[in-house]
Amino acid sequence: MPSYKAPLEDVGFLLDDVFQFDRYNNLPGFADASADVREAVLGEAAKLSENVLQPLNRIGDLEGCKRNADGTVTTPKGFKEAYKQVAEGGWLGLSAPAEFGGQGLPVTLSQMVAEFQCSANMAFSMYSGLTMGATAALMVHGRPEQKAIFLPKMVAGEWTGTMNLTEPQCGTDLGLLRTKAVKQGDGSYKLSGTKIFISAGDHDLADNIIHLVLARIEGAPAGIKGVSLFVVPKILVNADGSLGERNGVTCGSLEHKMGIHGNATCVMNYDDATGWLIGEENKGMQGMFVMMNEARLGVAVQGLAQSEVAYQNAVAYARERLQGRALTGAKATDKPADPIIVHPDVRRTLLTIRAFNEAARAMVVWTALKSDVAHRSEDAKERQAADDHMGLMTPVLKGVLTDVGFANTVLAQQMFGGHGYIAEWGMEQFVRDARIAMIYEGANGIQALDLVGRKLPRDGGRAAMAFFGEVGAFAKQHAADEAMKPYLAPLSVALGHLQQATMWLMQNAMAKPDNAGAGATDYMQLFGLTAFGYMWARMAKVAQDKIASSGATSYLTTKLVTGRFFMERMLPETSVHLARIQSGAATMMELPAEAF
Amino acid sequence: MPSYKAPLEDVGFLLDDVFQFDRYNNLPGFADASADVREAVLGEAAKLSENVLQPLNRIGDLEGCKRNADGTVTTPKGFKEAYKQVAEGGWLGLSAPAEFGGQGLPVTLSQMVAEFQCSANMAFSMYSGLTMGATAALMVHGRPEQKAIFLPKMVAGEWTGTMNLTEPQCGTDLGLLRTKAVKQGDGSYKLSGTKIFISAGDHDLADNIIHLVLARIEGAPAGIKGVSLFVVPKILVNADGSLGERNGVTCGSLEHKMGIHGNATCVMNYDDATGWLIGEENKGMQGMFVMMNEARLGVAVQGLAQSEVAYQNAVAYARERLQGRALTGAKATDKPADPIIVHPDVRRTLLTIRAFNEAARAMVVWTALKSDVAHRSEDAKERQAADDHMGLMTPVLKGVLTDVGFANTVLAQQMFGGHGYIAEWGMEQFVRDARIAMIYEGANGIQALDLVGRKLPRDGGRAAMAFFGEVGAFAKQHAADEAMKPYLAPLSVALGHLQQATMWLMQNAMAKPDNAGAGATDYMQLFGLTAFGYMWARMAKVAQDKIASSGATSYLTTKLVTGRFFMERMLPETSVHLARIQSGAATMMELPAEAF
Repeated sequence: MPSYKAPLEDVGFLLDDVFQFDRYNNLPGFADASADVREAVLGEAAKLSENVLQPLNRIGDLEGCKRNADGTVTTPKGFKEAYKQVAEGGWLGLSAPAEFGGQGLPVTLSQMVAEFQCSANMAFSMYSGLTMGATAALMVHGRPEQKAIFLPKMVAGEWTGTMNLTEPQCGTDLGLLRTKAVKQGDGSYKLSGTKIFISAGDHDLADNIIHLVLARIEGAPAGIKGVSLFVVPKILVNADGSLGERNGVTCGSLEHKMGIHGNATCVMNYDDATGWLIGEENKGMQGMFVMMNEARLGVAVQGLAQSEVAYQNAVAYARERLQGRALTGAKATDKPADPIIVHPDVRRTLLTIRAFNEAARAMVVWTALKSDVAHRSEDAKERQAADDHMGLMTPVLKGVLTDVGFANTVLAQQMFGGHGYIAEWGMEQFVRDARIAMIYEGANGIQALDLVGRKLPRDGGRAAMAFFGEVGAFAKQHAADEAMKPYLAPLSVALGHLQQATMWLMQNAMAKPDNAGAGATDYMQLFGLTAFGYMWARMAKVAQDKIASSGATSYLTTKLVTGRFFMERMLPETSVHLARIQSGAATMMELPAEAF
Repeated sequence: MPSYKAPLEDVGFLLDDVFQFDRYNNLPGFADASADVREAVLGEAAKLSENVLQPLNRIGDLEGCKRNADGTVTTPKGFKEAYKQVAEGGWLGLSAPAEFGGQGLPVTLSQMVAEFQCSANMAFSMYSGLTMGATAALMVHGRPEQKAIFLPKMVAGEWTGTMNLTEPQCGTDLGLLRTKAVKQGDGSYKLSGTKIFISAGDHDLADNIIHLVLARIEGAPAGIKGVSLFVVPKILVNADGSLGERNGVTCGSLEHKMGIHGNATCVMNYDDATGWLIGEENKGMQGMFVMMNEARLGVAVQGLAQSEVAYQNAVAYARERLQGRALTGAKATDKPADPIIVHPDVRRTLLTIRAFNEAARAMVVWTALKSDVAHRSEDAKERQAADDHMGLMTPVLKGVLTDVGFANTVLAQQMFGGHGYIAEWGMEQFVRDARIAMIYEGANGIQALDLVGRKLPRDGGRAAMAFFGEVGAFAKQHAADEAMKPYLAPLSVALGHLQQATMWLMQNAMAKPDNAGAGATDYMQLFGLTAFGYMWARMAKVAQDKIASSGATSYLTTKLVTGRFFMERMLPETSVHLARIQSGAATMMELPAEAF
């Protein structure tokens, strides 16, 4: 059975040392998150994840969710009690505003908690994750009375939330959606239609479920410009806040999926269900985008989280499994064979995962801090710069952290040999669970197109230029530092590749947009690698400074070695991505569809 | 539900045109495999795979195998009838010698048939695959009376075979095995012990199951030099060939696996089971190696086969799924959206899979022909050269075809968006099934070590030098051919990288074997890419010649475009593999095991 320990030391290093959390004390909520508070909060989150959520992970996979004859859905054994603990612990409201019962702490902290919970139990953590996404959308676009009715209950974890976008004929292309909404005399709407792939669509964890639903108001324009957003509670809420009648929305069936069996993925049938408009008519995508950005960062964290827990278990196995002898002669001479961690190929595999995990976690902290700045700073220029960063990095994080996170679960499984293929060992569940993260909240090909087609050119490329400038300035600042050379030299090469690729796209994709499409995925990966390289260089600098000031620790030494591994073995991939981008679209567009 | 069509046109092009099958007519069995016979055999194999085996693939996954209270194992509905058809069709004996009831046709043909059957139903095809592996070992190392008893029944498909190597404490390191064999007065042995992960260990498809079992004879030396090979039938065979008493070998339980649910993966308990020695005492690995080489090529074909069927279904979906519009403006203006195959990123993904499939299939044909030459030629020099090729390419094929084949099933699944994660669409089954091929028959890290540590240096590097010479000579021969430049220029770069990597290993891995271990996986992948590049160059040349002589066809034009895609986008990865190899082992060996 797999186990899990929250990476508290690494999170502490990132928050305290690399990103100097206390520098942000001028922002609302940050002063409340002093080092002591952070340690207490993260320590409690770790315990909850390790002791309550992780032991339910395999049970959730084995049992799955069940739809009962009356259309209700039962979650796996233990989920209900665990969810109660999560709600009562206030974990859903960690960074929600105090006016709705939240604790108002920085989003950066709740992202760290989300990583722990997802490492422990991805399927379970989605119930909270979706609730927080729906909460965010209501917070921004809901009317005051909607906020008053729904938010306190959702922040308290008494009610959960969902996002209802996909229909059988449309996923990526929401302009094709057909669910219709008919306005009623009292200002409400009646919704009818079928939504599919609705995570946490129905379950027994909460008293009510608040669905956010995209639908088309009768007579609305065709396409995406005729799509509106509605809030549709599973159970109607009376004026006094008590629960009233059952609304016309039901789970028609549960999907049979590759993984995340503990989460109920529902076909939702809307049959004259009563809903209320959120925001303006036909502008539903605005509200949805708030939820999607929040959700995309959350999905990126899922990729990291599964990679982290898979890594931990692969390391434990590699230390224990005795098989063969080291190439340089027996090491554990008192044993019948050496532990397989003596083998370079095993270490290569483990460090490949670890070097990603630590850089990805740094990226998440960096970007979550920008999210806090974007929402909490009083300085408009600072807010804009932070928002630029978020817009640019969201597709990179979602695409790269889930692609690589999944690949890493496969690598970790491989360390177990045949045992990795056997369910009881738990490694194959990480692979099956992690797989969905590459698909939902916008498949990764869509993330790449969002990056290249929308985020990169926005405002004349301002966000990308700021990133290039920051990385370049860091490299220049430390150019004379001999100890930083092994990190900065490869970083500069990677940055050069990214800049060349950006230039190539500017020169070749305006007139021929297929060149942007053909290079999009490679550009996203090139961008991610370069950003990882920058994270590693920053972490290395801080680790070196700490060692100089207060001496070496195993953690800091390992950090420096892992960073060098990244620079030597992983960052050089940027050259291939550049070559691919520069090869353009001509060859792949040459064939007629029938020829494939 | 997925579908499958055997790639008959591509196989025909490889056999007839690229590798000129008829050139081998001097070898036994080849003259019987004239173009007409090949077409008939492959056509029948295609029908069986498409119409009988493929429809059982999802049933097998859903139902799985069941162990009954009496220890017998029941396969999924329909498997028994289908296996009868396979046996009665003579498919198990296609390339077995006539003296045992086989048809004596070239192994090259049976490898093509194996691809079709595995694309259609991987779990099912393993029952035959293991039988053919066990047959091969008995053929080489069995005593005449053993051959007479077992081979005719196995060739006829009446009895099946297994390989029993793994035990709980040993997989890769078979020197640790504990199953013991005690010699009896009549020359037989009594075997006792537990074997795990035994594919097709028990089932209801055949009257008897012939287990080949590695065990340690009482008093044998420790380690791998004390391991012997035994044949242990499930049911003892009387002198007249009729079935006698039940032997002391039973299926203790079935493993719960990630995939290949239709194949019974058994824990096998040997309890004073009667067995007979195959070959000499303490030289069990020799017999096992015959079976393993056969099996490794078979597993390589599994990687290709799953990639092929996943590709076919991804293409069908990409042509049908309407979502969004082409970046260059609407294409299907009569429809609400364009089929997603208009998008460069979709085509990039599809061509990435296709370019691998076609090169991998060429590699399989090329190597299977060498296997035929090695076994059938009367010219000792020719046999040796063919055997060199087989030895060198077996780990490359096993490692690369299963690594990339699996990755391709993930890419194909991604084309389906959310539907790819849903069981009913069948794409996630390809991913789960293909995953095992990277693990069994020697995990891919072991293949890489086998290549670098054993196959590469053998006989002073003769096999590798022959390969480099052949590729170099091909490039030189066609250097003046303008139309071949887009293929030969990238191939020469890749060959250069492979030669540099080989040189680096020669100079740096003798004194420091960790450098070989650290570079092994990258070297294997670099080798595979270069060999694929060579296959593409050869295929391109033949396609160009055919177009010049008898005009263009859609198949030939697509071949040339796919080859260019490979050269532009995939072959350049060799540079990263070279850089990684040259970075050596120092960084990864620096950390103590506790630091991971």
